Amino acid sequence: MSQSKGFARERELVNLLHDADFQVTRTPKSGGATQRPLPDVLASNGEVIYAFEAKASKNDRVYLSAKQLEELVYFSRGFGALARIAIRFDYENWYFFHPGNLRMTDGGNYRISKERAIAKGKSFNEIIEHNVQ
Amino acid sequence: MSQSKGFARERELVNLLHDADFQVTRTPKSGGATQRPLPDVLASNGEVIYAFEAKASKNDRVYLSAKQLEELVYFSRGFGALARIAIRFDYENWYFFHPGNLRMTDGGNYRISKERAIAKGKSFNEIIEHNVQ
Repeated sequence: MSQSKGFARERELVNLLHDADFQVTRTPKSGGATQRPLPDVLASNGEVIYAFEAKASKNDRVYLSAKQLEELVYFSRGFGALARIAIRFDYENWYFFHPGNLRMTDGGNYRISKERAIAKGKSFNEIIEHNVQ
Repeated sequence: MSQSKGFARERELVNLLHDADFQVTRTPKSGGATQRPLPDVLASNGEVIYAFEAKASKNDRVYLSAKQLEELVYFSRGFGALARIAIRFDYENWYFFHPGNLRMTDGGNYRISKERAIAKGKSFNEIIEHNVQ
């Protein structure tokens, strides 16, 4: 997927969160070598803080490296945020995964299929209602 | 002050916070018209969350518009962060002010002199020890 498409998807997520009365910051990815790892989107409504790594695809799976996941978890622990992978396939809703619910591939990275996202992911409403673990 | 100088000062604050074991995000100012108001720097150590508006000057005062202050307070309330104005004069340390401790000018905006910053501002150590109100 093109970078601009990924960026547009992120904006979509930011708008959903704003509409649900979250305050949201979005991390620039152009920070270069000195930039410490940051989540794509950080959001809080004063009760719950989420750090999202956002993944979008027009195909039927998304990939996440072990390093990306570790960095998301590291930041979230330090910040006091809940880490979630936000996944968006074309023509589907957003689905959300706790880092502990991802399956590792033989190569040590992570892959989430569209089928699994729809079957096992939390919906945006579940996320904002905080009925998540 | 030039924009690059202001950016370098902000980076200084970010580094201080990192060294004090905070996780920190910094907001790009190039978001354009669709960008909602965000603090310059957002930091949390999992116990306390700060939203900073950073002001630096090589002269002896800094200015903050009423709008900037309102936006900082609005974001911070929604996010659940403590709003602080972070002020840095050349050759001085950082000083921090609660929005309620700023003096309004006749024009309805805010001005903080170097003298007042040094006399009344909280130090960085006071901020990170959370001995602040």
